[in-house]
Amino acid sequence: MSSSDIFIGETIGTAILILLGGGVCAAVTLKASKARNAGWLAITFGWGFAVLTAVYTSAPLSGAHLNPAVTLALALKKDGISWSDVPIYWGGQLLGAMIGATLVWIAYYGQFQAHLTDKEIVGAPGAQATTAKAVEAQEKGAGPVLGIFSTGPEVRVAWQNVATEVIGTIVLVLAVLTQGLNGDGKGLGTLGALITALVVVSIGLSLGGPTGYAINPARDLGPRIVHALLPLPNKGGSDWAYAWVPIAGPLIGAAIAAGIYNIAFA
Amino acid sequence: MSSSDIFIGETIGTAILILLGGGVCAAVTLKASKARNAGWLAITFGWGFAVLTAVYTSAPLSGAHLNPAVTLALALKKDGISWSDVPIYWGGQLLGAMIGATLVWIAYYGQFQAHLTDKEIVGAPGAQATTAKAVEAQEKGAGPVLGIFSTGPEVRVAWQNVATEVIGTIVLVLAVLTQGLNGDGKGLGTLGALITALVVVSIGLSLGGPTGYAINPARDLGPRIVHALLPLPNKGGSDWAYAWVPIAGPLIGAAIAAGIYNIAFA
Amino acid sequence: MSSSDIFIGETIGTAILILLGGGVCAAVTLKASKARNAGWLAITFGWGFAVLTAVYTSAPLSGAHLNPAVTLALALKKDGISWSDVPIYWGGQLLGAMIGATLVWIAYYGQFQAHLTDKEIVGAPGAQATTAKAVEAQEKGAGPVLGIFSTGPEVRVAWQNVATEVIGTIVLVLAVLTQGLNGDGKGLGTLGALITALVVVSIGLSLGGPTGYAINPARDLGPRIVHALLPLPNKGGSDWAYAWVPIAGPLIGAAIAAGIYNIAFA
Amino acid sequence: MSSSDIFIGETIGTAILILLGGGVCAAVTLKASKARNAGWLAITFGWGFAVLTAVYTSAPLSGAHLNPAVTLALALKKDGISWSDVPIYWGGQLLGAMIGATLVWIAYYGQFQAHLTDKEIVGAPGAQATTAKAVEAQEKGAGPVLGIFSTGPEVRVAWQNVATEVIGTIVLVLAVLTQGLNGDGKGLGTLGALITALVVVSIGLSLGGPTGYAINPARDLGPRIVHALLPLPNKGGSDWAYAWVPIAGPLIGAAIAAGIYNIAFA
Repeated sequence: MSSSDIFIGETIGTAILILLGGGVCAAVTLKASKARNAGWLAITFGWGFAVLTAVYTSAPLSGAHLNPAVTLALALKKDGISWSDVPIYWGGQLLGAMIGATLVWIAYYGQFQAHLTDKEIVGAPGAQATTAKAVEAQEKGAGPVLGIFSTGPEVRVAWQNVATEVIGTIVLVLAVLTQGLNGDGKGLGTLGALITALVVVSIGLSLGGPTGYAINPARDLGPRIVHALLPLPNKGGSDWAYAWVPIAGPLIGAAIAAGIYNIAFA
Repeated sequence: MSSSDIFIGETIGTAILILLGGGVCAAVTLKASKARNAGWLAITFGWGFAVLTAVYTSAPLSGAHLNPAVTLALALKKDGISWSDVPIYWGGQLLGAMIGATLVWIAYYGQFQAHLTDKEIVGAPGAQATTAKAVEAQEKGAGPVLGIFSTGPEVRVAWQNVATEVIGTIVLVLAVLTQGLNGDGKGLGTLGALITALVVVSIGLSLGGPTGYAINPARDLGPRIVHALLPLPNKGGSDWAYAWVPIAGPLIGAAIAAGIYNIAFA
Repeated sequence: MSSSDIFIGETIGTAILILLGGGVCAAVTLKASKARNAGWLAITFGWGFAVLTAVYTSAPLSGAHLNPAVTLALALKKDGISWSDVPIYWGGQLLGAMIGATLVWIAYYGQFQAHLTDKEIVGAPGAQATTAKAVEAQEKGAGPVLGIFSTGPEVRVAWQNVATEVIGTIVLVLAVLTQGLNGDGKGLGTLGALITALVVVSIGLSLGGPTGYAINPARDLGPRIVHALLPLPNKGGSDWAYAWVPIAGPLIGAAIAAGIYNIAFA
Repeated sequence: MSSSDIFIGETIGTAILILLGGGVCAAVTLKASKARNAGWLAITFGWGFAVLTAVYTSAPLSGAHLNPAVTLALALKKDGISWSDVPIYWGGQLLGAMIGATLVWIAYYGQFQAHLTDKEIVGAPGAQATTAKAVEAQEKGAGPVLGIFSTGPEVRVAWQNVATEVIGTIVLVLAVLTQGLNGDGKGLGTLGALITALVVVSIGLSLGGPTGYAINPARDLGPRIVHALLPLPNKGGSDWAYAWVPIAGPLIGAAIAAGIYNIAFA
């Protein structure tokens, strides 16, 4: 693959991933959305099929890593990708994630406006937050729609939050690395995209409860930057104090998974 | 493929698509349906598996476009289908959509009657609407069961409504166009039908909140015509003022996606 | 395939189908079940994956029709199965359906007992039904747990009930008949079982609202006979007045689908 | 396969299975989890995709039994695995299940603490249980979070509980044993992992209501041991009186299924 194919593929793929992944969070969260309160199953299937769509579309160009942790693992893996390609993958992933988050804002523009100017949701403008939800959001340093962009913990304890992201990412990366090892040689390609998507649904359902399963540094950092930049009314803070966790956890998890793979499977 | 195979395949396929897609909306909406209030997940999986069933059944005859936007993109694509086939596809799609919407009415006949003669739902006949739901429907120019036939926006702002349909259609068409590019050559055929179906579930979950994701001009126009023609009691208006959006948005999106494909992938 | 393989395969497969299909209805309906009130999505996915499991398991023996309507269509189809095999298929299907319904009763024995001796559900024994639900069940001639065994209409109008079953069966049978026609030759076999299962989920979500989608005479008749025979307390009637609809509708639908297939696809 | 590959594969695979399977139960049960009360569909899909992820990852090493009942059936099957491998499989499975349950505890550490120190959930410490839920748990000899680790019956009648586990395991094992018999030879490998996963979703939806569908002795015993050992506050009993049912039922079911297979399919 050429460097430009890698960069373009990762940019398009991660843009689709975040458009659809952030999109389902917007759909379930925002006022005046037909999907409001559709629940946790909608979110986890939404993110899983976002992976399916994004991997399937971008795989012919870049192999569809769409995740800096996956790229790291594929570089650490025996006979893995070249380290010189890693910055190209990571660059495309971060750019794509920012584009995707911006597209969510465009697709849900009227819903963001309706939601963030509703006093019951954000409190009276310029005043103290008056509702329990708004107070809680302010205390966390997290704005009322930050969850559409980035992840955040339910119980804010750094070691556990990192551990949960490490564990989730180990599961994801092991499943990706063992693609192609199966007996019928069908691990890669179209069916691989489907399996990976359902693995992501699984991680969401099973390990998403504590931190919202970033398991991907670009998925969290890119949209968090966009949240900080967008002219959203009453948007509140971007919770930068937490931003390192969904970067460090997935990268550590990817390294551990690559180690397990190299020892047990390769 | 012969012209008659194309026309018959698209007619049968789009009829199945709209029968099952409109059917799930009827199932979830109407009084005296076992599926009433089954929620947004039911609607999005219902539409997705409608695509699966329709594509799978009609693909041997016509290749299963079932969507004028997809046909447009396949004509604009490098080495795409012949422009002379486009009207045959479009004709079959519109006819099929109208047949499908009529079959929904037959399958749910008793439910439509029970629903539309319930005064709490439609207001007293010949009088002002008395319930909030009925008033809201009248203000929108949308009848109480129009959502079973056609899409409508939650926030009625033309540029955003078009943008949302454009974005959703770009995702759909890119996923369709990249079929066959994947490494194992499995993009097309049976597995392709499944992937496309899950992409449609994804678009529904993630981008359906604002406008109900037409992403297909025939899917919206055909059933809207049938809504206008059917002898449904107290059916209300067919909201023709909105009808151009789910035609223009998907066609624009398809053209953009074909452009991206021709530049980046072909 | 030998006659004994056909009979054994259809018996095992249909027993698994009804065990899992009736099982999900028991799971969602009965008191003291962990899945109580899990909703329409649970029922439709439960029946769909019942088809998957049953088809996948019995296909190597009999080809896994598991449905008299499918067998009829495959006999009517050009170059279809031999008519002399039809009674063997039908016999295995009816026997399997009865075995499956009996297994549901065994697996949920304590739940049936708890449910049917709860006075709020069945009314005081030997007296008039006192709850709305019990009264409604008596008026219909349908016992309080009959829905775990057989289908029943929400609006009891014969022509519409038959029409809904005809339409649903046409969709099912067309999807089955077009297996093997797709470009990559993957219609049959393992992937075909998955597609058929998801088509059944689709029919359930989209066309199940009015009558509960029998779309299979054995699926309805076998369990209805078992309902009539089992020593369930306060079980109420077996609604024999409706029993012809889920037999006639699917057989008519299968014949129409075979006709469409022979004209348009074969 | 070498003995060490078998042991390592089963350990890794069963650890992933129980991490994700126990994880979804934690996600849906515990206070301060984003997925709390996500419902039965979340649990059944969570366990099914746990199987998918675990089978897919460990299949290249050990063939991914991940279940002592499956191993037993594959030894009883005509031309099955060597009996001398059985203890290696079983050892890896039990060790993996214990590792997986421990990882659930780490990933949800803060949620377990919040849940088990909430007086409304566990009652006042050192006192009689005061809430209905806590009283019921004590009467059963089951702690308030035991369901995250092990299964338990809704109606505690030994013969029925065993019968339900026998029936569920027969379905699972028959589907596993018939892999590879299908016409296109695609039973094994990647697609086989997906089918098996969906069969497990099916068993959960349809047969999980009475006992919570262990259908796997290691899945139940390993986490029950971990529950007994972990320093969880107010955790209550481990319900050892029930522990034999999810061991005996699945092993009996596996033997019956292997018998059916050997007679009807082999």
